Amino acid sequence: MNLPSTVEAIVAGIKPVDRTWIEKARERTTQLVMPPRALGRLHGFSERCCGIQRTLTPVLDNKAVVVMAGDHGIATEGVSAFPQEVTGAMVRTFLAGGAGINAIARHAGAKVWVVDMGIIPAIDPRKVTGGHLFKISKMGSGTASLAWGPAMPRETAERAVVTGFTHAAELFQAGVDLLGTGDMGIGNTTPSAAIGTVLADCSLDDMTGRGTGIDDDALVNKRALIAKGLEINRPDPRDGLDVLAKVGGFEIGGIAGLALAGAYFGKPVVVDGFISTAGALIAQSLCSTVTDYLFAGHQSEEPGHRLMLKRLGLTPILDLGLRLGEGTGGTLAMTILDSAVHMFKEVMTFAEAGVSEKTQ
Amino acid sequence: MNLPSTVEAIVAGIKPVDRTWIEKARERTTQLVMPPRALGRLHGFSERCCGIQRTLTPVLDNKAVVVMAGDHGIATEGVSAFPQEVTGAMVRTFLAGGAGINAIARHAGAKVWVVDMGIIPAIDPRKVTGGHLFKISKMGSGTASLAWGPAMPRETAERAVVTGFTHAAELFQAGVDLLGTGDMGIGNTTPSAAIGTVLADCSLDDMTGRGTGIDDDALVNKRALIAKGLEINRPDPRDGLDVLAKVGGFEIGGIAGLALAGAYFGKPVVVDGFISTAGALIAQSLCSTVTDYLFAGHQSEEPGHRLMLKRLGLTPILDLGLRLGEGTGGTLAMTILDSAVHMFKEVMTFAEAGVSEKTQ
Repeated sequence: MNLPSTVEAIVAGIKPVDRTWIEKARERTTQLVMPPRALGRLHGFSERCCGIQRTLTPVLDNKAVVVMAGDHGIATEGVSAFPQEVTGAMVRTFLAGGAGINAIARHAGAKVWVVDMGIIPAIDPRKVTGGHLFKISKMGSGTASLAWGPAMPRETAERAVVTGFTHAAELFQAGVDLLGTGDMGIGNTTPSAAIGTVLADCSLDDMTGRGTGIDDDALVNKRALIAKGLEINRPDPRDGLDVLAKVGGFEIGGIAGLALAGAYFGKPVVVDGFISTAGALIAQSLCSTVTDYLFAGHQSEEPGHRLMLKRLGLTPILDLGLRLGEGTGGTLAMTILDSAVHMFKEVMTFAEAGVSEKTQ
Repeated sequence: MNLPSTVEAIVAGIKPVDRTWIEKARERTTQLVMPPRALGRLHGFSERCCGIQRTLTPVLDNKAVVVMAGDHGIATEGVSAFPQEVTGAMVRTFLAGGAGINAIARHAGAKVWVVDMGIIPAIDPRKVTGGHLFKISKMGSGTASLAWGPAMPRETAERAVVTGFTHAAELFQAGVDLLGTGDMGIGNTTPSAAIGTVLADCSLDDMTGRGTGIDDDALVNKRALIAKGLEINRPDPRDGLDVLAKVGGFEIGGIAGLALAGAYFGKPVVVDGFISTAGALIAQSLCSTVTDYLFAGHQSEEPGHRLMLKRLGLTPILDLGLRLGEGTGGTLAMTILDSAVHMFKEVMTFAEAGVSEKTQ
């Protein structure tokens, strides 16, 4: 199968979800041996999966989460509670199986696929032990600081999106049914807040929070840097690649590519928290149909996340106060989606169970 | 091991959760390679499990949900959208593996244990195929209508609680680590609303909702019947067995026994929705310490559920608009609790991962 090599070609291959499958699925739900839609949002989850996979027997067995990692020029300007070298150290922790996403993904039965989209250190994939999946797709050695000019050239932004698409394509072609998005990159709530401000059309102050836990002074500095970056760069809200190039990040572009791939291949994608949702906003601006294929894994503690999800038109599955990223919230939500699909396929109808329907 | 045979003896065997284990667990959480408490409520879940199981290596692998079934005299007085025979028909559906709880429990890896606490039909456990666990502990052939006098004698109420305890004891002694509560009983939102009104100390109107989906006229009737039952029976809010006997149900007493057993054996119990939470309120009124051992699986759509959970001091894990009962919401939440415990045990410390702690 020839894969598209430009964003334009990817978008040309995306079709809306087939509403007739959703209608057929809703009809089956009315027959399940329970009061009407008594399992609440689980019904909507299973019906959307029917629409996405164009079937009445959706399958989410084979799960994977892609953790996109990248460094950020702005990380050295006091926007994070952690030093920049933590990006690479955490990538090594993923590859050693010791981070939050590893534990949660193991429990969810999801494989973890880590991509170096442009972190500063060079980690040799041949030295990774334990069979972990690690891919090198460096777009650069960290982005430039968005406060002083574009974070990356436009061509690099497009390459980041296409690269994310290509990784997801490999997974879908290998049989993955349900993909989660994840991120690692010290400083990356800053580009994400910049993207959210532009694409969710809301105020910079509402969109910008404390990330990993900065204090009041650092928050003022972070907002000022984003304001300066938006002023200098003037990203065009109608042009997702322009926004990504000017105030984005390599891993955020990769995540946008994952989202587009779900839509292209007809597979559901569970979006994680603030950074992943910034990636989903880039994908939406490139192709509005993409949101048909997305689930919002959880409501992040980062305050702007709610505004991003509103722009995407997605309601989060979980709300557990998470603010880690790495794909943890999305992967945790996979078990809920998979349970909904099993429920849809396995619960008997009133007729099969020989139970009276509502009569009183 | 000799099991207690009275509520008094059960309560005498319950100790508070050991705070020192929770403190030790909180200390470990600070060392995990992530920003402080970045996985939000997952940390509290895992730390509470450490306190409950008195260990830093809690285990929730072996899961079971007990579905307590009973019929209700008041069910023939127009309080439900479904006819009374649906209770027995749904018990048969559980035993055939075809209900919502079966599908969700299979996916969660939880065994389903169904108890006839007093349904009207006699289902012969020897005729149950497929290896499903079915126990007969009939307290009667349905309760009496709470609108006209006590639902059951006080001795029966105590026997229902002790019976629930005994079933849970058998499961815990067989190695179950995490127990879920479930219910089946047409009409049982009515006794549950009555219990909630008395024990959560709030208005009958706030506590009483549409259950499986009754219309406005039926809701007026339901509220009037509960008001009449409370007026005639005058249940004593300081005496849980009096409340259970006068306005309760056999399966609700059984659920109270499950909750007490978790506290007695030092095992976490996940409470399902409105009916299960009424059972938990009975347990709390018998022994306030019991709430240390309980998790609220989800926020039900039944409006009074929020008020019940407030009285218990529990915050629900999930909020997905469920209103089915059967143990579905609690069992769905088990995967979140288990994931939290795996995370707690498996994530490396900063030192193990060689990652810098917060420094900027």
